[in-house]
Amino acid sequence: MRTDDIDLRHHGDAEVGSGLVDFAVNVRPGTPPEWLAERLRASIADLAAYPDPRPARRAVARRHGRAVDEVLLTSGAAEAFVLLARVLRPRRAVVVHPQFTEPEAALRAAGHPVDRVVLEKDFALDPAAVPRDADLVVVGNPTNPTSVLHPAEALAALARPGRTVVVDEAFMDCVPGEPESLAGTLPPGVVVIRSLTKTWGLAGLRAGYVLAEPALVERLAEAQPLWAVSTPALVAMEACCEPSALAEAERWAASMAAERDRLAGELNARGLYVVPGARASFLCVNVPDALEIRARLRERGYAVRRGDTFPGLGPDWLRIAVRDRATNDALLEVLGDLGV
Amino acid sequence: MRTDDIDLRHHGDAEVGSGLVDFAVNVRPGTPPEWLAERLRASIADLAAYPDPRPARRAVARRHGRAVDEVLLTSGAAEAFVLLARVLRPRRAVVVHPQFTEPEAALRAAGHPVDRVVLEKDFALDPAAVPRDADLVVVGNPTNPTSVLHPAEALAALARPGRTVVVDEAFMDCVPGEPESLAGTLPPGVVVIRSLTKTWGLAGLRAGYVLAEPALVERLAEAQPLWAVSTPALVAMEACCEPSALAEAERWAASMAAERDRLAGELNARGLYVVPGARASFLCVNVPDALEIRARLRERGYAVRRGDTFPGLGPDWLRIAVRDRATNDALLEVLGDLGV
Repeated sequence: MRTDDIDLRHHGDAEVGSGLVDFAVNVRPGTPPEWLAERLRASIADLAAYPDPRPARRAVARRHGRAVDEVLLTSGAAEAFVLLARVLRPRRAVVVHPQFTEPEAALRAAGHPVDRVVLEKDFALDPAAVPRDADLVVVGNPTNPTSVLHPAEALAALARPGRTVVVDEAFMDCVPGEPESLAGTLPPGVVVIRSLTKTWGLAGLRAGYVLAEPALVERLAEAQPLWAVSTPALVAMEACCEPSALAEAERWAASMAAERDRLAGELNARGLYVVPGARASFLCVNVPDALEIRARLRERGYAVRRGDTFPGLGPDWLRIAVRDRATNDALLEVLGDLGV
Repeated sequence: MRTDDIDLRHHGDAEVGSGLVDFAVNVRPGTPPEWLAERLRASIADLAAYPDPRPARRAVARRHGRAVDEVLLTSGAAEAFVLLARVLRPRRAVVVHPQFTEPEAALRAAGHPVDRVVLEKDFALDPAAVPRDADLVVVGNPTNPTSVLHPAEALAALARPGRTVVVDEAFMDCVPGEPESLAGTLPPGVVVIRSLTKTWGLAGLRAGYVLAEPALVERLAEAQPLWAVSTPALVAMEACCEPSALAEAERWAASMAAERDRLAGELNARGLYVVPGARASFLCVNVPDALEIRARLRERGYAVRRGDTFPGLGPDWLRIAVRDRATNDALLEVLGDLGV
């Protein structure tokens, strides 16, 4: 596989055409919820003032049981990757693939060479596959696009003196109870990145954050533009840390998980290989001639995410977001029409 | 003056306490206007989708008569300064002071040494004061905090092969007709930075843009986080480029200018030195013992901006935003009580 030809800057949003049923972007349907939208609309009245990140920063710290100086609010997780790439000076950066391609793109844009570790059998994390001398390791959990949730112990096993381990937990709130999150323990050298984008439907607002040791948070903040996070994004962060919001996310995660597992079962029943142990809000599916199937799905009004722009996947893979039962069944029916 | 002691990251927003009448932050009062707030509230319904900057980019290009590839939308002007500091590799960077301190802070944070040219007599721009070997020059127009509008010819005279001239036009829409703006001509090597913050009351939204030659725009975009500008900010940019919005801004600028000149006359009449030729939405005023006056104004419920954190000013300077006539008169009365 010639990974150098891959467009790391291709993302699901580019696959959603007007009028297509969206199985390409992993944002929870029906979001933002009305209670949150109402707060965001109310925040428009306060836009003449510069943003004050302090209340949201305190709320995020409290939500994860962290100190305030371990929290950096960012303009989406994408900004976090850019800040890390700018501040860290890795001698050997390793990105564990398949995964979201922005971290590697940000490292390369900042001038850092990047080595790739491509996971094999069912995309399970093998800490021994990471070179010992890697002083920066980036890994997703649960992983986009494989949907695999790595055990916290396997991630913690990557940490060692002199190494920074960046865990992209942008989809962690898809996992009821978040048992494998490192946000609550934050072992030395571990950096956790979170996002409000998927569960709360805030892709257009740019709201995420970094959890890291205070010295690194300070360096990242120094590299960050002044007033980087908008007032509406701050309002969202504070709101989504409230107990009622966390409970809503947990209920959604549980029902999404049940429907995801049903959809995976249906795809398995057709003889398709679905990456096992899926825990995020999407499935990674091996479909022979996937690009052709994707094109024919588009003709029928359905957008799915191509897999070939993920290092470690290839032209026989698709990523399919989990929707509600009726929408998923409609997709299954069209797939059946296409002989899949 | 020991400029190294200056806190370049001090800004007017830190001076506004709860309940204080705000003469410290230069945002147009009564903003955002209701028609704009309504559009921003409507944009909340679209947040589940990733931002699409293309329509706003086209609108900004059209508004200034520029090609689309000469426009980079940014998360406020502050992000533009950080991107420039990251992408440019100046051998000798010069910042013309007094001016907004973020450009220098961003250059220093990116590891670039910065030389300061401090303007003298009435803070008029003297192109000859800029060292010939400076390959990056940053200047504000009209200038925060002096309110001085430099002639377009003086700025154009700074341009030369191998030099980038960054003109911060964040307050240019305070100047009716914008006669000295370089946005419409964009001479070779000139970069113009604009902001929606002040006229439209969008400090909390983070909306600005860069006009520059396409090759530089491309490099800045490469250094920018993905989806850097939020959907509501994009909606605002597009809306504020409409002819009706430009006409509204122009009417406000004209009425603000009249009140500014009246306020300057009143301060002059008390024997205070007001930097002459003010063209922005604030006045730069020499007040003996300004820090003491500022403290006593705060006790009386009025926040003004200290001048001593601007290189080239000092402890005898205040920056005073222009408000409506009644509010300005109330400040004048309190100043009179304080013996000013």
